[in-house]
Amino acid sequence: MSKVAIVMGSKSDLPVMQDAIDILKTFKIEVEVDIVSAHRTPDKLYDFSTNAHQRGIKVIIAGAGGAAHLPGMVASMSPLPVIGVPVKSSNSIDGWDSVLSILQMPGGVPVATVALNGAKNAGILAAQIIGASDPDVLESILMYKEGLKAKVIDSSKDLKA
Amino acid sequence: MSKVAIVMGSKSDLPVMQDAIDILKTFKIEVEVDIVSAHRTPDKLYDFSTNAHQRGIKVIIAGAGGAAHLPGMVASMSPLPVIGVPVKSSNSIDGWDSVLSILQMPGGVPVATVALNGAKNAGILAAQIIGASDPDVLESILMYKEGLKAKVIDSSKDLKA
Amino acid sequence: MSKVAIVMGSKSDLPVMQDAIDILKTFKIEVEVDIVSAHRTPDKLYDFSTNAHQRGIKVIIAGAGGAAHLPGMVASMSPLPVIGVPVKSSNSIDGWDSVLSILQMPGGVPVATVALNGAKNAGILAAQIIGASDPDVLESILMYKEGLKAKVIDSSKDLKA
Amino acid sequence: MSKVAIVMGSKSDLPVMQDAIDILKTFKIEVEVDIVSAHRTPDKLYDFSTNAHQRGIKVIIAGAGGAAHLPGMVASMSPLPVIGVPVKSSNSIDGWDSVLSILQMPGGVPVATVALNGAKNAGILAAQIIGASDPDVLESILMYKEGLKAKVIDSSKDLKA
Amino acid sequence: MSKVAIVMGSKSDLPVMQDAIDILKTFKIEVEVDIVSAHRTPDKLYDFSTNAHQRGIKVIIAGAGGAAHLPGMVASMSPLPVIGVPVKSSNSIDGWDSVLSILQMPGGVPVATVALNGAKNAGILAAQIIGASDPDVLESILMYKEGLKAKVIDSSKDLKA
Amino acid sequence: MSKVAIVMGSKSDLPVMQDAIDILKTFKIEVEVDIVSAHRTPDKLYDFSTNAHQRGIKVIIAGAGGAAHLPGMVASMSPLPVIGVPVKSSNSIDGWDSVLSILQMPGGVPVATVALNGAKNAGILAAQIIGASDPDVLESILMYKEGLKAKVIDSSKDLKA
Amino acid sequence: MSKVAIVMGSKSDLPVMQDAIDILKTFKIEVEVDIVSAHRTPDKLYDFSTNAHQRGIKVIIAGAGGAAHLPGMVASMSPLPVIGVPVKSSNSIDGWDSVLSILQMPGGVPVATVALNGAKNAGILAAQIIGASDPDVLESILMYKEGLKAKVIDSSKDLKA
Amino acid sequence: MSKVAIVMGSKSDLPVMQDAIDILKTFKIEVEVDIVSAHRTPDKLYDFSTNAHQRGIKVIIAGAGGAAHLPGMVASMSPLPVIGVPVKSSNSIDGWDSVLSILQMPGGVPVATVALNGAKNAGILAAQIIGASDPDVLESILMYKEGLKAKVIDSSKDLKA
Repeated sequence: MSKVAIVMGSKSDLPVMQDAIDILKTFKIEVEVDIVSAHRTPDKLYDFSTNAHQRGIKVIIAGAGGAAHLPGMVASMSPLPVIGVPVKSSNSIDGWDSVLSILQMPGGVPVATVALNGAKNAGILAAQIIGASDPDVLESILMYKEGLKAKVIDSSKDLKA
Repeated sequence: MSKVAIVMGSKSDLPVMQDAIDILKTFKIEVEVDIVSAHRTPDKLYDFSTNAHQRGIKVIIAGAGGAAHLPGMVASMSPLPVIGVPVKSSNSIDGWDSVLSILQMPGGVPVATVALNGAKNAGILAAQIIGASDPDVLESILMYKEGLKAKVIDSSKDLKA
Repeated sequence: MSKVAIVMGSKSDLPVMQDAIDILKTFKIEVEVDIVSAHRTPDKLYDFSTNAHQRGIKVIIAGAGGAAHLPGMVASMSPLPVIGVPVKSSNSIDGWDSVLSILQMPGGVPVATVALNGAKNAGILAAQIIGASDPDVLESILMYKEGLKAKVIDSSKDLKA
Repeated sequence: MSKVAIVMGSKSDLPVMQDAIDILKTFKIEVEVDIVSAHRTPDKLYDFSTNAHQRGIKVIIAGAGGAAHLPGMVASMSPLPVIGVPVKSSNSIDGWDSVLSILQMPGGVPVATVALNGAKNAGILAAQIIGASDPDVLESILMYKEGLKAKVIDSSKDLKA
Repeated sequence: MSKVAIVMGSKSDLPVMQDAIDILKTFKIEVEVDIVSAHRTPDKLYDFSTNAHQRGIKVIIAGAGGAAHLPGMVASMSPLPVIGVPVKSSNSIDGWDSVLSILQMPGGVPVATVALNGAKNAGILAAQIIGASDPDVLESILMYKEGLKAKVIDSSKDLKA
Repeated sequence: MSKVAIVMGSKSDLPVMQDAIDILKTFKIEVEVDIVSAHRTPDKLYDFSTNAHQRGIKVIIAGAGGAAHLPGMVASMSPLPVIGVPVKSSNSIDGWDSVLSILQMPGGVPVATVALNGAKNAGILAAQIIGASDPDVLESILMYKEGLKAKVIDSSKDLKA
Repeated sequence: MSKVAIVMGSKSDLPVMQDAIDILKTFKIEVEVDIVSAHRTPDKLYDFSTNAHQRGIKVIIAGAGGAAHLPGMVASMSPLPVIGVPVKSSNSIDGWDSVLSILQMPGGVPVATVALNGAKNAGILAAQIIGASDPDVLESILMYKEGLKAKVIDSSKDLKA
Repeated sequence: MSKVAIVMGSKSDLPVMQDAIDILKTFKIEVEVDIVSAHRTPDKLYDFSTNAHQRGIKVIIAGAGGAAHLPGMVASMSPLPVIGVPVKSSNSIDGWDSVLSILQMPGGVPVATVALNGAKNAGILAAQIIGASDPDVLESILMYKEGLKAKVIDSSKDLKA
C-alpha cells in the first residue's frame, strides 16, 4: 500500500518531480504518482484531496509551477501533511511566482514548502514524516545522513589528493 | 438580477474590496458580494464557480491576499471572465505573493489581474466588460472618463491659482 | 467584422503575441492585428484608441515589453476592456519592468493584466469577455475547458501506463 | 512526554512563535519550548539536534530571522522532520533574508518551510505530521478544518445581514 | 520666459515634486508647473508634449507614481530632454513599479531617470542641462557643489566638537 | 572639438557602450571615448571629472556594471550633466546592482540614468541636451523621431501584407 | 593611536554607525570618526583613503545609504581592509540600493560587507581583524563570544521560569 | 604554515573558489583548502571552526550556495575574521538566496561578505587583513593596486590606438 502520494500539475513537471520518486524508492517507501491539475481538473483535485487519508496515504507531495495552486488546494481539502515543491517552469518569473504561491499560505492551511525544484528534499521530508512514527524508516534516515557525510569526506580526500 | 459577483477570501479583505462595490453602484450595475475561501470552503468555491454563469452573472471579481488562490480557482471552474484583485494583507511579503499568485496563471486559465489593492479598477473593468455589449454602460464609461479628465483640469487650475 | 483588436509595440513582439491570434481563431472570433507604438507613433495610438469602440471592436489586447506603456495608454483613451500582455523583451530586467508597467495602473484606468508572455491567456480572456454576452462563445469556452481536462486525464493515463 | 519541540534563535522571536505553542495546545499535543541560537550557542544546538529523536520528540519547529540558520542546522543533525518559520525581524530586508535562508536548503537536508511569521501554520503542520500516524490527532485536524469552514460561513452571513 | 516645465500626474505628487521647483528657484531658473495625466488627460499630454520646445522650454521634468507613463509619453512626443521622477505613491509596490516604468524605456526614447522621490536631483539636473550652454548657470552649479562640500566639512567639525 | 565624453569602467563595457558612440555619430556630434575606472584609476577619474567642462565637453556619458560607482563619482566632481548607463556585466545580480548603484544617488548629485544596457538612449539623451541650446541638433532629433515613426508604420504594413 | 577609522557619508548615518563605535570601545580599540562624503567631498575622500594606512590605521569602516559609493571608493584608494555598512536611509528602496552598491564590487577591489544597518557587526569584524595578529584582542573576542552564549542561556532560563 | 583556510560546502563550489586560491598564491600567502559542509558534516564543521585559530590560521574564507550556512556557522564558532563568498549554484534563485544567507548575520556574529561568486575579492581581502599587521603583504597590495591601474591605462591606450 502506497504511503506517499506524489501529484503534479502537468506532465512537464515530471523531470523535476522524478527526484522525489527516486529518493523514496531508496527508502523503500511505496509511492503513487499522478497528474492532478488544480486549474484543469478541479473535480479530480477534489476527489484526490478529500480521499487520500482514507486510502492509507500518510503524506502528499505536490509540485507545480507559476501561480502554483495545487499544493495549497490539496492542503485545503486533506488533513494530511502536504509538501509543496515549487517548480521553475518555462514562463516563470525566475521561480518567484511558484515559490510565493506555495509558501505564503494563510493561517490554518499550511504547506510544507521546500526549495525551488527541490523534489529530492520533498521525498526525504516525506520519509522523515513517516520515520517520526516508524523506527525502521527513522533508522534509514540516520544511515542516509551518514552517507551524505561520507561523500563529503571522500570529496575532501579527492581535493587533497 | 446581479451581473457582477464579488467574492473575497476573508472578511478582512472587505475594506479593500469595497471600492469595487462602490464604483459598480455608480455605474448602476447590480452586484452580489460574498466570502468564499479557496482554502477554507472548497465546497462553496466549487458551487459558486460552476454555477455563476447559470445565474446570469456576467463577470466575477475575486480578491485575496498572500498565496492568493481564490481568483485562479474560480477561473478554473467558471467560463466567465474573472478579475483578480491582489490584496496586500498583513503578513504579505510586500504584496508580491498575492500579485504573483494571481497574475502568473498557466496557459488555458486566465485571470484578469489589476494592481495591488486595485479593487476600484476591478469594478471599472467589470463595467467595461459589460459595456462591451451594452451601449448604455459603454456610454457611462465614456462619461466617467470625461469626469476623470475634468478633475485633472480642475486640480491644474487650483495649482495655478 | 473583427471583434478583437490585437496591437503590439514592436514587430519583435509578434512571436509572443501570435498565441493570442491563434487561440482566438480556434474560438472563431475575428481578429485584427497591428503594430502601434506608444512611444514612436503617438498619433496612431491616439487614433486607434479613441476609435476602436466605434468600429465594432469589443475587446483590445495590447502587448509590450520593458517600460510597457502601450496597454495603459490605450486604456486611457478607449472605453473598451483592454487586456495587457507583458512581453519579456531582450533588455528587460527579467520581465519585472513590463509586468509592473502594465499591472500597476492608477485608479480609474484599469488594464486586465495576464502573465508574462501570456498571450494565449489574453486571447482566452478576450473570448470570455465576448462570451459574457454571446451564448455560442460561452459554450465554446465550456468545451475548451473540457478539452483541458481531457488532456490532463490523458497524460495521467500515459504516466501510469 | 513532549512530542513537538519548538526552538527559536532569540527571545525576541517569542511573540511570533507563541502562535505555534497556542495552536498545538488546542490540539492537546505536548510541547517543549527553548531558545537555541545557531550562532551563539553552537554546542547547545548540537546537543539539542542530535538528541531530540531519542527523547521521544516527533517533530521540531525552529523559528529564526535574518540569515536564519537555526532550522537548517537543526535539520542537518536531526533525523526528524524540521519545520522552519521565517521570522520578520527588525533589520530584516522585508523578510526575504529569513525566507530564503530557510527555504533554499541543499539536496539531502530538507526544511519544511512555512510562510513569513507563519508560526500558527507550523503548529498545524506539526499536528498533521503526528496525525499521519495517530488517528485521534487526524480526527482533531478534520474537526479543525470544519471549524475554519464554519467561520467563513458565519462571516459570509454577517456580510449579507 | 520659463526654461523648465515641471509636470506631474496628479496633485498628490506635488509634495514630492516641490523639491524640484524649490531648487530651480535657488538657481534663478524660471519654472512653469502643471498637472498633466497621461491616463486621464491624453489630449493635454499631446498638446503639452508636442509644443513645449516651441515655447522656449529647454528641459521637461515629469513625475509620476505606480505604472508611471507620463515621463515616457512626454519623451515620445517632445524633442527636449525629459527628466523622470519616480514617485513612491500610496499603492506602489515599494516604488519598484514607478522606477521601472520610467527607467526601462525602449531604444529611441530616453528618459533621464533620477532616484525614487528624487525631485531635488531632477531640478539640479535640469539646471546642469541649461548650464551646459549657459556659463552663468554653470558657475552657479560649481558654487552649489562648493556649498555641499562646506556642509559636510561643517558637520564633520560638529562631530568632532 | 568633442562635445560628449563617453567613459566606461572597463574595456568589457565597450560592446554595450558602442551604441552611444554610433548614435551620436549619426547626429554628427563629436565624441571622445576613454576607459576610466572609479576603482582602479581614481587619479584619472579625478582629473577627467574636474576638467571636462573646461575642455568644451557639454555632456558626459558614463557606463559601468556591478557596484557601478563611475557615473556617480564623475557627477560628484563635474558640474556637467552626467548620463549613467547601467551595464549588465557577467557577475551582476541580473543587473539590479548596476541599476541601483547608478540611479539612487543622494540629494545634490544627480545622475541621469537610462535603461539597463541602454547606451543608445544615453547617446540620444546627450544629443537632446545639446539640442536644448542648438537648433540644428534639435531639428535632427525631430527628424530622428520621424524616422522611428516611419519604421513602425513600415513594419505595420509588412504585418498586414 | 587609533587603529580603526570609521567614516560615514552623512551625519544622518551616525545613529546607525554609533553601534560600531560603541562595540569597539568595549574591545578597548581606539577609534577615530569622521564624515567623508564620496559625492560631496571627493578631495577629502582622496586624502583620507590614500593616507589612512600611513597613520597607523589598520581597518576602515565606511557606512553609507542609497547609491552608497563611499566604502567602495575608500577601498579603491586604500590598501587596508575596508568594511562596508549599508545604511537604510529614508529614500532607500528598502535598503537594496545600499546593499548592492557596497557588496557587488568588481574583481580587484573588495569591500567586506555586513548586514543592512549592521554597524555593530562591522565593529566586531574590525576587532577580529586586529585580533588576527593581536592575541589580547583575540582573547577579548573569545570572551565576547562566551558572553553571547551566556545571554542565550539566561534567556532560555527566563523562558522556562 | 598556512595563514588562510579556504573551505567550501561542496566540491562543485571549487571552480568559483579557485580564484581565491590563485590570488592568494600571487601574494605568496600559504593556503589550506578543504570541503566542510555545514549541513552534511556538522562534526567536521565544529572541529574546523573551533580549532582554526589555534593552528595559526589568521583568516577563514568560506564559500557556499543556496541557503548558505557555512560562512555564518564557521563565524559562530571561530574568533577569526570569516569572509563569506556567495556562490551562484544551479538551483539558486538568481543568487539572492546565498547572498542574503551570508550577508544578513545577526548582531554579534559578523561575516565579511563579498560579491556573488567574488572569490577573487575574498582572497584579496584576506591578504589585506594579513597586510594590516604585515608590512610586506601591505606593500604587495599597494603594488597589486598599481597593477590594476596599469591595466586600465593600457586598455585606454588600446581603445585610442
